[in-house]
Amino acid sequence: MSFNTFGKIFRFTTWGESHGPAIGCVVDGCPPNIALSEKDIQKDMDRRKPGLSKFTSQRKESDKVEILSGIFQGKTTGTPISIIIYNKDARSRDYETIKNKFRPGHADYTYLMKYRIRDYRGGGRQSARETASRVAAGAIAKAVLNKLIGKKFKILGAVVQLGLIGCNKNIWNEKEIRKNPFFCPDKKSVKLWEKYLLAIRKSGSSCGAVIELRASGIPAGLGAPIYSKLDADLTSALMSINAVKGVNIGAGMSVAFLSGEENSDEIRNIKKKIKFKSNKAGGILGGISSGQEIVASFAVKPTSSILSSRETIDKKGKNTKISCVGIRAVPIGEAMMSCVLLDHYLLNRAQCG
Amino acid sequence: MSFNTFGKIFRFTTWGESHGPAIGCVVDGCPPNIALSEKDIQKDMDRRKPGLSKFTSQRKESDKVEILSGIFQGKTTGTPISIIIYNKDARSRDYETIKNKFRPGHADYTYLMKYRIRDYRGGGRQSARETASRVAAGAIAKAVLNKLIGKKFKILGAVVQLGLIGCNKNIWNEKEIRKNPFFCPDKKSVKLWEKYLLAIRKSGSSCGAVIELRASGIPAGLGAPIYSKLDADLTSALMSINAVKGVNIGAGMSVAFLSGEENSDEIRNIKKKIKFKSNKAGGILGGISSGQEIVASFAVKPTSSILSSRETIDKKGKNTKISCVGIRAVPIGEAMMSCVLLDHYLLNRAQCG
Amino acid sequence: MSFNTFGKIFRFTTWGESHGPAIGCVVDGCPPNIALSEKDIQKDMDRRKPGLSKFTSQRKESDKVEILSGIFQGKTTGTPISIIIYNKDARSRDYETIKNKFRPGHADYTYLMKYRIRDYRGGGRQSARETASRVAAGAIAKAVLNKLIGKKFKILGAVVQLGLIGCNKNIWNEKEIRKNPFFCPDKKSVKLWEKYLLAIRKSGSSCGAVIELRASGIPAGLGAPIYSKLDADLTSALMSINAVKGVNIGAGMSVAFLSGEENSDEIRNIKKKIKFKSNKAGGILGGISSGQEIVASFAVKPTSSILSSRETIDKKGKNTKISCVGIRAVPIGEAMMSCVLLDHYLLNRAQCG
Amino acid sequence: MSFNTFGKIFRFTTWGESHGPAIGCVVDGCPPNIALSEKDIQKDMDRRKPGLSKFTSQRKESDKVEILSGIFQGKTTGTPISIIIYNKDARSRDYETIKNKFRPGHADYTYLMKYRIRDYRGGGRQSARETASRVAAGAIAKAVLNKLIGKKFKILGAVVQLGLIGCNKNIWNEKEIRKNPFFCPDKKSVKLWEKYLLAIRKSGSSCGAVIELRASGIPAGLGAPIYSKLDADLTSALMSINAVKGVNIGAGMSVAFLSGEENSDEIRNIKKKIKFKSNKAGGILGGISSGQEIVASFAVKPTSSILSSRETIDKKGKNTKISCVGIRAVPIGEAMMSCVLLDHYLLNRAQCG
Repeated sequence: MSFNTFGKIFRFTTWGESHGPAIGCVVDGCPPNIALSEKDIQKDMDRRKPGLSKFTSQRKESDKVEILSGIFQGKTTGTPISIIIYNKDARSRDYETIKNKFRPGHADYTYLMKYRIRDYRGGGRQSARETASRVAAGAIAKAVLNKLIGKKFKILGAVVQLGLIGCNKNIWNEKEIRKNPFFCPDKKSVKLWEKYLLAIRKSGSSCGAVIELRASGIPAGLGAPIYSKLDADLTSALMSINAVKGVNIGAGMSVAFLSGEENSDEIRNIKKKIKFKSNKAGGILGGISSGQEIVASFAVKPTSSILSSRETIDKKGKNTKISCVGIRAVPIGEAMMSCVLLDHYLLNRAQCG
Repeated sequence: MSFNTFGKIFRFTTWGESHGPAIGCVVDGCPPNIALSEKDIQKDMDRRKPGLSKFTSQRKESDKVEILSGIFQGKTTGTPISIIIYNKDARSRDYETIKNKFRPGHADYTYLMKYRIRDYRGGGRQSARETASRVAAGAIAKAVLNKLIGKKFKILGAVVQLGLIGCNKNIWNEKEIRKNPFFCPDKKSVKLWEKYLLAIRKSGSSCGAVIELRASGIPAGLGAPIYSKLDADLTSALMSINAVKGVNIGAGMSVAFLSGEENSDEIRNIKKKIKFKSNKAGGILGGISSGQEIVASFAVKPTSSILSSRETIDKKGKNTKISCVGIRAVPIGEAMMSCVLLDHYLLNRAQCG
Repeated sequence: MSFNTFGKIFRFTTWGESHGPAIGCVVDGCPPNIALSEKDIQKDMDRRKPGLSKFTSQRKESDKVEILSGIFQGKTTGTPISIIIYNKDARSRDYETIKNKFRPGHADYTYLMKYRIRDYRGGGRQSARETASRVAAGAIAKAVLNKLIGKKFKILGAVVQLGLIGCNKNIWNEKEIRKNPFFCPDKKSVKLWEKYLLAIRKSGSSCGAVIELRASGIPAGLGAPIYSKLDADLTSALMSINAVKGVNIGAGMSVAFLSGEENSDEIRNIKKKIKFKSNKAGGILGGISSGQEIVASFAVKPTSSILSSRETIDKKGKNTKISCVGIRAVPIGEAMMSCVLLDHYLLNRAQCG
Repeated sequence: MSFNTFGKIFRFTTWGESHGPAIGCVVDGCPPNIALSEKDIQKDMDRRKPGLSKFTSQRKESDKVEILSGIFQGKTTGTPISIIIYNKDARSRDYETIKNKFRPGHADYTYLMKYRIRDYRGGGRQSARETASRVAAGAIAKAVLNKLIGKKFKILGAVVQLGLIGCNKNIWNEKEIRKNPFFCPDKKSVKLWEKYLLAIRKSGSSCGAVIELRASGIPAGLGAPIYSKLDADLTSALMSINAVKGVNIGAGMSVAFLSGEENSDEIRNIKKKIKFKSNKAGGILGGISSGQEIVASFAVKPTSSILSSRETIDKKGKNTKISCVGIRAVPIGEAMMSCVLLDHYLLNRAQCG
């Protein structure tokens, strides 16, 4: 049972509304003796932060992370790590005009149907602001994985499709991806995407995106055969991100179009080491990691707010439309994947030693 | 925690290996006073049964369901329902030749990596035989939903893409879908698919498929905002089916290519009833059902066994290759969706009354 | 899985160390539309607060509760309620002398054995300070039960044994119990207990206590037959309170000394209403509530710190010894019982409607 | 969530009614590569079996265990172990006379209140017959602990109080305890208890009992600080056994009568090894094992059926009254303790490596 909790051994519970005093999370089950500081978390927070580029949310938030428990003399103690992030930009607005409206594509209507009450200020709990807490939890997961697995471990996401325009995914360079405002792996596409997105924005519209995540250094054997399958948990984690509507593992939906020969990742025993000749499976077979790179991707729908005239102008008259919510999903996806992988690492340690 | 258990309130635990004496499941948390017999379950079992057509597994199994507990005088009592299905076709074969081989695309290698031991007879626990237990659990979930929601409730899946060939999805007729061996909604495509699959089989190859599931009559308000999102749980359920590599909710992965206007499901208040003008969201907004039809789809990869010569011939010299594992995934998908919907119905009753 | 989380549907997760900046909890699964303010919670907090009488901890804490989320316009919204309580008296002390010592009866040694690191300042996470968070969660549970069950619902605990001296339990008067510093139901015993405890303190020793809890108005049918038994969950809840070593339901351990006739609660059908002639069972049969008063009791061990000279004097030279930790356990026990009862109320609503 | 499931990592789900065709359990999360046969389990089953002595239930059951899954070539595979025990003595009786009666002290009434339906044949699910499944699960847990911890691990329970008559607990000899029909550690008391129980039976009455459990060889560090406390989980496990009304850890309820000095287990560092001078705490401090012997005890109420004339005579006219249900609780208690200890061993491995 877990309305607002994610994970099995490494678990986090998030809380907070878009326009409440603060948001935060409690991370439980974290292994002890892992070096961790607010700075380690802040680094990832800054990549998700609104207002980073003209293409993402213009909300002004420093997203400063404070750790309230679970760390002693710079190390985790194995007790819950409580993290708080104060909302700075939760300014008092006149919500009277929107409180009885249901924005299309938003959860306004479904929240009211479920709870018969809703905090309509900025979307309340349904706001993507909640994902800040996930990024904090993910940063902790990464620190733990770095300690447990070592430097072989690396997780890196990128936008690979922006609306109608794809990009070259052959080069997956961390430096490049984190440098451009689109988290795009292909520097040749950056200019094109910029033009494309400016045109979309100008027309008052928005576009969707596909994000791809890759994790390397993951040992074989993580996951479980039936209902704790690594791919099922990963998929659930990614589908829980706001605006995500589809998730692929490896070749994903496209396996429907492949023949058995095309889809098969042949196995070779080269110098007593198992080698796969391809990775259509995305590093997961029967719900268990194979030791190959874990590859997942997901689609984020275009911003729903475009039609809603009340959101087009903020108090200073600036256009605050978000043209593509997918961009910010990169660090969130990385965080969720990190949490799932750590969770399964710990689970495997429990059952299989 | 749930290696082999699925669900939160309505939970089932499956057990058994492909070539052990039996397989089965224990369904816990089922509401009391629901009329239920072995016949109700058998009906669904028969739709998943191997050997149904020349296109599915040729294993001979009657898949006869026996209920061992939880029913009294024809009604559920609220205590665990234990179901057992004896394996008939688990004939003793010479497994010496395969016990040290890893079939590509199968979980042979990853099971061994994880557990350092594996039951190699017919794939053991990793075999799709386990899905028979899910269909039994799903039949129980359906019976409960029929009682709780009434006749408005209907769940119906179909194959909508067979390898490279799609079909018309506009007519979604139960009678038609359940009549043809492909679970195809479009009777015009059946002949074509048959030819196509026979050609694939002849060439010794196989193909993938896309299955679509639709549930109607589901009330608004099911799901939970963050980590028990209805779509996240549904996705996880479908991804846990053998050979599934991608899952879509509503428009799914294709939202990446839509504009905000195209993707937005506009809401109208018609005679004091909320009406949506389209259903790109697949009936789920912010992780909560909207009252629209719930629509999900998933891709099943082509059979992995094609390359493995040891599996092409059974003891009677008959070709036992399965050309498309996707077909049998229809009743399995329906079962998983039924379980998720019932689980959220009960969860919602717990929190929101 | 739940290192620091309690409950199934109504769940709370606590965090924080004795001498960290703050402690708190996140309450998840709370039904929506329940009127709730900080004042409602503060009332219960004040009864647990240290420094209330000369017999309890002298730590100076206002224990002021702040709600950070989950409430909108004075009502619960169904989303997580985050509560924070800042530590005021977490003064910087010289811990060098104690950091390598293991206090007998404390968890210093076992924490270090488990985690290989421990926050030794004031006991860190192992401190009874954590129980403040539980009282906050319990206050919320009570507010919900009051709304769902109505005014019939009442939960009231008292100290019924102080060291070697028992008291008359026949009168269970809320006003009396909450008036005296011992939470004693028998006003005649108060003077005696006071003398007794002062003598114990003077001798530098301490004593244990037995607390009894009674809940009335609880409907029949809460609980579950096997591993969510109402009594098992209640027992676990009470045993999780610091210093508790034994738990009884109804007649408890003394059933060993009763004959079948003495222990049997006979049932009569009086004017079409079921009446029990006694309540040895404490209101629970086969793990399910019978509609009678729920009665549980538990024993708290004598303060362990008495032998530890380093704790006898605080910075102002005042004797800070706690002579009986059991007294403060009354509001904590009430809180835990409230949470268990609400949880089972919601669970029952899920399965049985 | 776990109506009929127990445990966190090592989990078992039981199913089956007293007079259904069979009962059984599914054990999930068992580590792989543990040697296990039906014989290993049968040994423990035989100690719980009804009809063992004239003092326990006279039901004729061979309680023959069959393993249906999860074992391959004599070893666990890490997949679910399904166990089935067919009911032999579930003879068809005329239940018309009892179906509308509520036996005092039984769960007849509460089951009906909860579910509005009940399987009244022999108590259905509420029957102590369910505990056979627990003993099977416990036997598996013991086999795993023996492999993981080695021969140091030993768990041994005994009846230490029979009605009004206690016994000497100083000698805790396995051979003696398992030899006499009372599981009594003190051979001098056996004769006395026999006389006492025969007298009680003759008078048509029954008595309660106290069972004590001791586990040695348990490493320090198992358990978790707050809501997965080793003692809380142990208490919940023991309270879930039919007819148990009170549970003690170490000195238990009697700590209320001890002074701080008496209750304190002093710690000494002897030749660089930590030694405790006593064990009032029962081997658990702050919810975490200290490396000392784990000691728990629980009280079982006298048989409730004495007053119910319909149960005094079976079809052959033999008196079938059970004079003391507590005796059979010894192997059940050992089983539950084994499961809890293994579960925490695995949990600790997950979080702390």
